[in-house]
Amino acid sequence: MKKALIPLASGFEEIEAISIIDILRRGEIEVVTASAADSRLVKGAHGIDIEADTLLDSCLEDEFDIIILPGGGKGTENLLENEALHARLKRQKESGGFIGAICAAPLVLKKAEVLGGEAVTCYPTCAKDMKYPVARAPVVVDGQIITGQAPGSAMLFALVVLEQLMTSVHARGIAAGLVTDVY
Amino acid sequence: MKKALIPLASGFEEIEAISIIDILRRGEIEVVTASAADSRLVKGAHGIDIEADTLLDSCLEDEFDIIILPGGGKGTENLLENEALHARLKRQKESGGFIGAICAAPLVLKKAEVLGGEAVTCYPTCAKDMKYPVARAPVVVDGQIITGQAPGSAMLFALVVLEQLMTSVHARGIAAGLVTDVY
Repeated sequence: MKKALIPLASGFEEIEAISIIDILRRGEIEVVTASAADSRLVKGAHGIDIEADTLLDSCLEDEFDIIILPGGGKGTENLLENEALHARLKRQKESGGFIGAICAAPLVLKKAEVLGGEAVTCYPTCAKDMKYPVARAPVVVDGQIITGQAPGSAMLFALVVLEQLMTSVHARGIAAGLVTDVY
Repeated sequence: MKKALIPLASGFEEIEAISIIDILRRGEIEVVTASAADSRLVKGAHGIDIEADTLLDSCLEDEFDIIILPGGGKGTENLLENEALHARLKRQKESGGFIGAICAAPLVLKKAEVLGGEAVTCYPTCAKDMKYPVARAPVVVDGQIITGQAPGSAMLFALVVLEQLMTSVHARGIAAGLVTDVY
């Protein structure tokens, strides 16, 4: 079974995080949600409290097929300060694993120095802060790096992650259950 | 400030619930999430635990501009058994307030006897169980009743609810921040 790690910092964007977790679990990916805060209960950008499966510090040594960072302005600020996560992302890149980020979170990939020329997208107003070429696209896949633009592209982003971990036929089946034509 | 009640029963569909809560809060609606389970912590259909603001029993006497039921198979089964909620939905209808439901949850509107000929949609495989005319549409507004089809239409559903509570210009502004063209 393929395995995904979703770090959740205080201020994470809820639609993005939950669309990714929900859709990957529908698609039979083992998803571990991990709080980057002090307790398992993490407050999202719009006041929604999620109880994560575990604390991030307790699973940074585990192996994952993909590590995916949800966005949110404050959530991203918190992840930008998390050096243990940056080191883990570097090991993920070096070991050939996938890395995903959506909305403001591609800023963390830049900070963690895991971008080596890959094409990426991010939330439009964050593009200047990236100091890196940014595509104006809802979702971009380039090698190990999968990026998404905003809450409005979260469903497509999750389905594309599923396609990369499994197959496009599998992702289409899950999209049918969601009753969406975004994929 | 307009006020919305979102009952959350065990097994609620997470993308639907969170898209509605997140987008209405972005749109300056006061959203109260209320657990229909024994504790404030409620487990969704895909294992995501949300801590609701309060217990449903403690706020059924409060006034709301809209009451919105997220879907999810097991979540809907639980709401179908909640007679206190059905009585509250009847009072909501009689007092001229809005009622929303998405995915499998329109079955609860039928059970609570708040449908008086309004056009509705629901999750395609639930249509037969409705024993009521169902449109094959992502979102339907008819008078006080607003219904949505599935997780794939949750974002549009939330924006249409926002439009009905506020204005379409306001909803368009929120849609722009989400970077979506569904609305």
